[in-house]
Amino acid sequence: MLTTTLHAEDKAILIIHGGAGVRSPEALKKAGETREQIEEGLAKSLLAGWKAMQKGTSADGVEAAIRVMEDSPLFNAGKGAVLTSDGRAELDAAMMDGSAEGTGDGKVNAKRRGGAITGVAHVKNPISAARAVMEMEGSRHVLLAGQGAEDFVLNEANRRKYAIERVENHYFWTDRRLKQIRQPEAEDVRHDPEFVAGTVGAVAVKDGRIVAGTSTGGLANKWPGRVGDTPLLGSGTWADDRACGVSGTGTGELFIRSAVAHDVAARMLYKKIDVKQAAKEAVDEMPDQKGGAGGVIALDAAGNFAFPVSERCPGMSRGYVTEKGEVYVAIYAKDEWKKIEVK
Amino acid sequence: MLTTTLHAEDKAILIIHGGAGVRSPEALKKAGETREQIEEGLAKSLLAGWKAMQKGTSADGVEAAIRVMEDSPLFNAGKGAVLTSDGRAELDAAMMDGSAEGTGDGKVNAKRRGGAITGVAHVKNPISAARAVMEMEGSRHVLLAGQGAEDFVLNEANRRKYAIERVENHYFWTDRRLKQIRQPEAEDVRHDPEFVAGTVGAVAVKDGRIVAGTSTGGLANKWPGRVGDTPLLGSGTWADDRACGVSGTGTGELFIRSAVAHDVAARMLYKKIDVKQAAKEAVDEMPDQKGGAGGVIALDAAGNFAFPVSERCPGMSRGYVTEKGEVYVAIYAKDEWKKIEVK
Repeated sequence: MLTTTLHAEDKAILIIHGGAGVRSPEALKKAGETREQIEEGLAKSLLAGWKAMQKGTSADGVEAAIRVMEDSPLFNAGKGAVLTSDGRAELDAAMMDGSAEGTGDGKVNAKRRGGAITGVAHVKNPISAARAVMEMEGSRHVLLAGQGAEDFVLNEANRRKYAIERVENHYFWTDRRLKQIRQPEAEDVRHDPEFVAGTVGAVAVKDGRIVAGTSTGGLANKWPGRVGDTPLLGSGTWADDRACGVSGTGTGELFIRSAVAHDVAARMLYKKIDVKQAAKEAVDEMPDQKGGAGGVIALDAAGNFAFPVSERCPGMSRGYVTEKGEVYVAIYAKDEWKKIEVK
Repeated sequence: MLTTTLHAEDKAILIIHGGAGVRSPEALKKAGETREQIEEGLAKSLLAGWKAMQKGTSADGVEAAIRVMEDSPLFNAGKGAVLTSDGRAELDAAMMDGSAEGTGDGKVNAKRRGGAITGVAHVKNPISAARAVMEMEGSRHVLLAGQGAEDFVLNEANRRKYAIERVENHYFWTDRRLKQIRQPEAEDVRHDPEFVAGTVGAVAVKDGRIVAGTSTGGLANKWPGRVGDTPLLGSGTWADDRACGVSGTGTGELFIRSAVAHDVAARMLYKKIDVKQAAKEAVDEMPDQKGGAGGVIALDAAGNFAFPVSERCPGMSRGYVTEKGEVYVAIYAKDEWKKIEVK
């Protein structure tokens, strides 16, 4: 997993982000991590998604890609999620299927399905739980919170042949996260960009069907009960086959107040502009702030993609994979794409 | 409060809805209620909002109008809210201020503020709590859930000169709601339209500043932890001074999956169409269902308004008030506007 080259102007079947909360090279070094580890994590996620899509759907690709990042301690989602001030991991995730098959004839479940969970503490892979909420009963439920969400996915969904794995809360903990809450002075938590913008996401397209998903470590020292943009369809996650799929990462409240994810698709549909311009406009429309508001990833049905970040945002871990399985990644805002050859 | 006439094509400063879950004349009679009581409730709400706006802001108008409906047992919000299967009232509300003053220069708090709460059980007027979340610290928080939301508004907000009133959960209970959960067979709860579409909302404009708000009795026999569209900005509530303010009522999941409230504003901004056409298109775009998907109210900065409901929706309690304080109300889909003279 080593050779690197510059990228070409490709089409993608799957794009991902590992959060706009990129740490500086110095911060990485302090944590005993390297840029190459993050690149490798991104590449593994892309390849897992790509493999899942060979026989599976775009939903399979999104789920597989995000599960890899959830399972990796390098990203603020699943294992390695930030902890609340009360010492718990509380996780959010959403998935949306942009199917445009709905006909308005009462088949309400065919058109743009979605599922999301917020504030779960014992679900190993929140993205799989979000998918179960989306698929069961045709999105009769879209957003479930807290204990009710856990009961639904761990009991109701599992009874129906899903296999959502339950874990104790300490499964999510890592040495770095524990240190962050036990020695906040030493770790300078308040200035850790991952605490405001650590999130992972993916968008995939196959046979014209666009699926988007986002997963995050949640509340991160915020007021208990604070819900960010990740589990909110339209804010942090959106998919519409006629336009694009979007996953966002950044200061959640700014994303909610601009309905950023839906805004990208709306600009494509109503202004008739392409995905690159629509995504850039939607991100630029957000009020920016010190450290940046964040960024989005967006992918249209033809495989065109965009990875805009707000002006003062230092970067966004990101990557894409082509139909042939070629993997490209980047981290900081001005990075060139780096091709990762996987052994 | 009695004389009635047909309406003229007016401009409004404040528009409201009392939910798309309108009951049939027979169901009203069975509950010992009358059409005139609901019309009077709507008129009182409009007048309270109008009065608040004489010296106050559009946010004052929205808050005052919604508080009247929350305090009335006739509407599924605040007192008279539906109860969960566990016998509790759990309330949701949102408010959004469409200010376009943000400049993108880092003054993040000036542009489109919002606040919302979900699953609170002891806040007498949820709309006032949503407003406190919106105004405090410039929308550092937008959405707060459950106990964390209650702690924030009852402790933190009240410490800072807000006066959010705490009540016991049984304050919200009414004979009809208790009967609905204690004798569900007799009351035919599953077919009560208020259980799927009972919500109240308001949009006001003054000096070009548009504010929208929505409040609901919440979960209504649904899976515990289910969050509907009401507290989600972009889904059930939206405001943007450049376009319009929107409040929705209906099957929440359909509103979330179409980002209806934001979609109305996006169509105005990007397609350059007026508020009536944009609101109608956004509602028509939702998949419809038996009993109807629901409806929205929308008001632009010039006072033009729209009250579309989906094709199979029997109606939506609704009303508007002009700058002079003239009050018009309607209930069923095909109703003409009725002018209410208030003593």
